[in-house]
Amino acid sequence: MKKLINTPDTLVDEELAGMAAAHADLIRIEAPNVIVRKDAPRQGKVGVISGGGSGHEPMHGGFVGLGMLDAACPGAVFTSPVPDQMLAATKAVSGGAGVLHIVKNYTGDIMNFEIAAELAGAEGIDVEAVVMADDVAVKDSLYTAGRRGVGGTVLAEKIVGAAAEAGADLATVKALCQKVQDNVRSMGMALTSCTVPAAGKPTFDIGDDEMEIGIGIHGEPGRERRKLATADEITEALATPILDDMPFQKGDRVLAFVNGMGGTPLIELYVVFRKLHEIVAGRGITIERNLVGNYITSLEMAGCSITLLKLDDELVRFWDAPVHTPALRWGV
Amino acid sequence: MKKLINTPDTLVDEELAGMAAAHADLIRIEAPNVIVRKDAPRQGKVGVISGGGSGHEPMHGGFVGLGMLDAACPGAVFTSPVPDQMLAATKAVSGGAGVLHIVKNYTGDIMNFEIAAELAGAEGIDVEAVVMADDVAVKDSLYTAGRRGVGGTVLAEKIVGAAAEAGADLATVKALCQKVQDNVRSMGMALTSCTVPAAGKPTFDIGDDEMEIGIGIHGEPGRERRKLATADEITEALATPILDDMPFQKGDRVLAFVNGMGGTPLIELYVVFRKLHEIVAGRGITIERNLVGNYITSLEMAGCSITLLKLDDELVRFWDAPVHTPALRWGV
Repeated sequence: MKKLINTPDTLVDEELAGMAAAHADLIRIEAPNVIVRKDAPRQGKVGVISGGGSGHEPMHGGFVGLGMLDAACPGAVFTSPVPDQMLAATKAVSGGAGVLHIVKNYTGDIMNFEIAAELAGAEGIDVEAVVMADDVAVKDSLYTAGRRGVGGTVLAEKIVGAAAEAGADLATVKALCQKVQDNVRSMGMALTSCTVPAAGKPTFDIGDDEMEIGIGIHGEPGRERRKLATADEITEALATPILDDMPFQKGDRVLAFVNGMGGTPLIELYVVFRKLHEIVAGRGITIERNLVGNYITSLEMAGCSITLLKLDDELVRFWDAPVHTPALRWGV
Repeated sequence: MKKLINTPDTLVDEELAGMAAAHADLIRIEAPNVIVRKDAPRQGKVGVISGGGSGHEPMHGGFVGLGMLDAACPGAVFTSPVPDQMLAATKAVSGGAGVLHIVKNYTGDIMNFEIAAELAGAEGIDVEAVVMADDVAVKDSLYTAGRRGVGGTVLAEKIVGAAAEAGADLATVKALCQKVQDNVRSMGMALTSCTVPAAGKPTFDIGDDEMEIGIGIHGEPGRERRKLATADEITEALATPILDDMPFQKGDRVLAFVNGMGGTPLIELYVVFRKLHEIVAGRGITIERNLVGNYITSLEMAGCSITLLKLDDELVRFWDAPVHTPALRWGV
């Protein structure tokens, strides 16, 4: 295992210390493993929180700041955060207008966010939750009943965060997050495994001439193990199930998100975006906004995922709204 | 070789097509392998250009846009661009106020930019050049007489681009770039090799328990091959030669840049930043600005580099100025 770490046990703590040192203008570490927007709580604003296992950086901690998340709860690598963390985050960002939990659909995350919501409710904080489940690859998975929550979560956090920043109430913010979930689809693939530091060896074995189509963000099995193919063939293999699922239709406007899994260089992600643009245009669909880069990763896994979000004017407006976080910034 | 590509021969063209599709609001492809700011040429503005081999993305093409570069010339992977490209870029951005070439110190880049400058001069365009040579690892290198140009180039492009955007004349812009070069120092390391697509095999062999300290951005040998160490020890091994070189002194204000080589996840870069912050503070030096992420990469190499730039009020002001490029954006 070759990694820039000290010990697996101290990795997340040391990462958070580094984030706090680098981004003291944006965030603070409120409690162990709770990253909070520096000016939280903001009175009268709906708090927006997400969380999940570490190892997917910059998600979620890199999205805490103006116009996006009010707090993030990172667990150990690929391990759900605990209810105490989520409760601490919920209390830290509660400004009297309620708190939305954006939860990726993994059994541990769902259960722990539910417990935290109950505990917060007992302390008089209104909590609502939306479950993101945008991965079309598999119906059920290793850690999931139903579809996994993947790249669509990044887009939901940006859009919902903008609405909360603009003063929308809890019901409106929740409905908007559900709207994103209803209109977003994703699928990923891997060329290599990643290595969880505490495990010390690759999560799965894969041949030098093989790839995994439909991979999960923790290296969970996908749809099929195939022989290595060209970037264009891989892009087709990801885009087609996404386009066919909702389905996306001629005349649709979309946000196209090509995400790197952590170990794939940007030069390759643009090759994928090029082909995706061609495929989508070929169906009479317009890419109105895009995002290309590493935003929801699986440690150093090589591979990519594609996410398409069907847009309307409301979603475009909130996507374009100012954001200032460690990992995503514009308009400010 | 596992990569998201179609063929090595078409890789750069396809990447540029992807960039053009994703960032049509910011850039256009002016000539083969010449990325130009969409609104170039801007009359009365000094044009700022850089270029070099591909494989270091987002550098340089990702830095074309408002407040940074006017054009970038990507060569084949790890191969200098040709004079014709640089000439085309120079002419495309010439708005009558002259053009600055920011050149990383590699023999091929230097020679070809010099030829392009002569050709542009013959067409009546004033061209000046500044050579970036900030890598303290080695005195001479595989492709270099003198120090290599590495991470300091990213900072120079941002700062110089802001000055040109603000209307500074060619002599001022050149002097500012030289000031950045005089005040910036870098060093990198690698845990793994990268694989140049056309070669199809790793650039160098390295043991499972080894690392290369002082690596170049093309995988050139560094200072020494050592046994794998902790992130804290590695950070010390990079920071100490940088701090001692200029030397940086108590009371200095610096921009600290922790850069990923392409295959190292962000979670690890923050662990490095944490230790760097501690080391620098221990010497009575203040990190006033920072940048953490993948900005000057070596394909999928695992590793990182550290760059420190000594700041003054002028450099801070230009660093903070608005920028809007595919890879770096704030204030707009």
